[in-house]
Amino acid sequence: MASTAPARGMRDFLPADVRRRTYVTGVIRGVYERYGFEPLETPAVENIETLLGKYGDEGNQLIFKILKRGEHEASGQADLALRYDLTVPLSRVVAEHRATLPKFFKRYQIQPVWRADRPARGRFREFYQCDVDATGSTSPMVEAELCAAACEALQSLGFTDAVLRLNHRAVLSGVLDVAGLPADKHGEALVALDKLDKIGLDGVRAEYERRGLSGASAEAVLGILGAAALSGAVAADNAATLDAVAAFVAGHEAASAGIANLREVLALAARTPASGQLRVDLTLARGLSYYTGCIMEMTVPDLAGSLGGGGRYDGLVGMFLGQPVPAAGFSLGLERILVVMGERSMFPAHLTTTAADVLIAQWSAATAGDALELAHQLRGTGLRVEVYPDADKLGKQFKYAASTGVPLVVIEGDDERAAGELTVKDLRTGEQQRLPRANAGPRLRALLSQV
Amino acid sequence: MASTAPARGMRDFLPADVRRRTYVTGVIRGVYERYGFEPLETPAVENIETLLGKYGDEGNQLIFKILKRGEHEASGQADLALRYDLTVPLSRVVAEHRATLPKFFKRYQIQPVWRADRPARGRFREFYQCDVDATGSTSPMVEAELCAAACEALQSLGFTDAVLRLNHRAVLSGVLDVAGLPADKHGEALVALDKLDKIGLDGVRAEYERRGLSGASAEAVLGILGAAALSGAVAADNAATLDAVAAFVAGHEAASAGIANLREVLALAARTPASGQLRVDLTLARGLSYYTGCIMEMTVPDLAGSLGGGGRYDGLVGMFLGQPVPAAGFSLGLERILVVMGERSMFPAHLTTTAADVLIAQWSAATAGDALELAHQLRGTGLRVEVYPDADKLGKQFKYAASTGVPLVVIEGDDERAAGELTVKDLRTGEQQRLPRANAGPRLRALLSQV
Repeated sequence: MASTAPARGMRDFLPADVRRRTYVTGVIRGVYERYGFEPLETPAVENIETLLGKYGDEGNQLIFKILKRGEHEASGQADLALRYDLTVPLSRVVAEHRATLPKFFKRYQIQPVWRADRPARGRFREFYQCDVDATGSTSPMVEAELCAAACEALQSLGFTDAVLRLNHRAVLSGVLDVAGLPADKHGEALVALDKLDKIGLDGVRAEYERRGLSGASAEAVLGILGAAALSGAVAADNAATLDAVAAFVAGHEAASAGIANLREVLALAARTPASGQLRVDLTLARGLSYYTGCIMEMTVPDLAGSLGGGGRYDGLVGMFLGQPVPAAGFSLGLERILVVMGERSMFPAHLTTTAADVLIAQWSAATAGDALELAHQLRGTGLRVEVYPDADKLGKQFKYAASTGVPLVVIEGDDERAAGELTVKDLRTGEQQRLPRANAGPRLRALLSQV
Repeated sequence: MASTAPARGMRDFLPADVRRRTYVTGVIRGVYERYGFEPLETPAVENIETLLGKYGDEGNQLIFKILKRGEHEASGQADLALRYDLTVPLSRVVAEHRATLPKFFKRYQIQPVWRADRPARGRFREFYQCDVDATGSTSPMVEAELCAAACEALQSLGFTDAVLRLNHRAVLSGVLDVAGLPADKHGEALVALDKLDKIGLDGVRAEYERRGLSGASAEAVLGILGAAALSGAVAADNAATLDAVAAFVAGHEAASAGIANLREVLALAARTPASGQLRVDLTLARGLSYYTGCIMEMTVPDLAGSLGGGGRYDGLVGMFLGQPVPAAGFSLGLERILVVMGERSMFPAHLTTTAADVLIAQWSAATAGDALELAHQLRGTGLRVEVYPDADKLGKQFKYAASTGVPLVVIEGDDERAAGELTVKDLRTGEQQRLPRANAGPRLRALLSQV
């Protein structure tokens, strides 16, 4: 007999799960649409060349690869792969449809992605991302609107304490340059620095030593980036943080331009719902290799890791198109949002929790057709109606209704039939009453909203 | 440079596509929920053993297989596979959660499936199915409600000419038994018969001969099944069709029980929205191997193939659970429904076709923050608002708005700012007017609904 568990790191979503997921994605979708983002969907499966080389070495290894079909299957060759994020497919689509898409294409996309990561608490191999991206403009307005949309989406879900951390890839590179770290060591230095909040300054220093990054350069990096973070400046004063790093990289053209860009994004985003949630964090690096400018990450105090992140990636579309198209985006992680909302009991009470509003009991096999007709009549008024399928004893049918939480049970027995009526039992109160059959729908709806 | 086309047989859905798909799935979901079906979602990826052996030989070959990760990757071994339908995952879930699911578990599931079929017009390698299934009851009420839900879903989308064909696996087997066809030839005989509407009676006879199925037995099968179909009985008189086949299989216990079951389903379904669309079709076979009872298929005159189908499969859950759980389901095919609705122009005019209701022009880089604040104010009234990101000339901004179909363009220039007003240009009429900035949202909403 085959196993009945889902594949490792994957999950089945039972009705209560789906309702919570649908609620959250509906709220996010609503916000994204009010910001003028349009829906896009791409296939779960991409040609493998589309994905390889876009996510860095570690990313490449986490891509699920699909065997070639037919006679090639025996060769073990893979020609397809599962979508790893929503940004690379977007870049492919923008390149493919460049001629017909609007000059500024703003799209949202809420779909699952797959990564062959080691499963852990809150880390799955299939998980949903809720992405907004805008292509075609280098304006800091783009980043400001992304910050606004992400913050407003979380606010609409009830989050009041999310912090949006910002940094800039050019600033990071500039700091490492000025500190004298050779370019080929930048990646390693940032990977270690990214762990600062977990392992502390001494931990990062130890990791630097292990990687052969000790000495004056490493201390300079730790001095400007680490100290700013640990001193609490991250949480306090964006202007002071930027002033400090600006002094450090003075004369480094790209880094100075990055700081100017960050200042513009901050000033614009301060005029949006993101205001008050914006914190410059010089240690923020973001894992994916395609970012080129401003980078962002959303955190809440009670969750290790982030609720989402994003940034500017002006080079990615060009990898498909051959000519550069500026782009920036933000991705909210549905799974982590759901984890925190669950732990904080943030789901609204009105979320439907039962399969149906009304169960029509089956009086006898001979009257089963009448039950179906009645169901159609009630459904026509918008009620969610289940018909008990078997000719079981009424007691068993009531027990079933109670077990599923359906609030109202309707019976059309011989007496009721003769009188043109129905008996309705409200399982929430135990009360029972007779209603005229002809106009039962509105009466049942009124009953439903009474308790 | 990597190719920008989606993988073979897969599709990107641009905003207009997604809006149509979301509309159709929303209507179907609404009907399913009023029937008391609850939402379920399962992973795109299943353990490969979950899928193998469930769909027949042809099905096995069309399963997309995923390479084992890590050091095993080089071996070419596949341990995972992409979901091939929604019925096998449901059966796995029912077996896994038997203890906590309701006795009658009625679920709907609207998700993509993947099949490595040769792509053709209207046939894709990734396509959505909209399934309803009910487990736990052998009552013909189950099939009647499935017929009702499928028919009402299509009616709600505007279909008035769909026909729901019904047959029964036990009746088919009985006819072949009585005709004297050995059991090991049943499969082949049905595959050929399934093509009757494409190749005609002589075509089926020729195929029978090629497969060594000629002689009296084959003629008997063609006589009772083929003739009933070709005589037009399929379209006319269900009772006459059933009477004829009942006489043919008289004394064959399983077939006679199948006919009685079909009569019950028909009588019950006649009391539902499926009434008037039900046609017994003795040549209907359905490809999947797991069906055990009543089978169904939905067709419209202008589409070769079906809009959906289903049936009873009392053995499938047992393959996972070790004990039988009765089940039946119906699957509507989203892609084909969209094809027909497109060809017939059945999409409602009110479907949103633009990214935004309002474009806020950018007067100058210095006032960009004001534009963001105004956007927030307008979005708060439910308007979908895009902010032009670049400080381009106004003419260019108007041109952009016209190209994307946004109906209203709002400008807050120096004069307007001084007066506490906004200028609004309605691109549909060319008319321009000034509005007070403070309460602009409701005024813009009124403007929007005027044309």
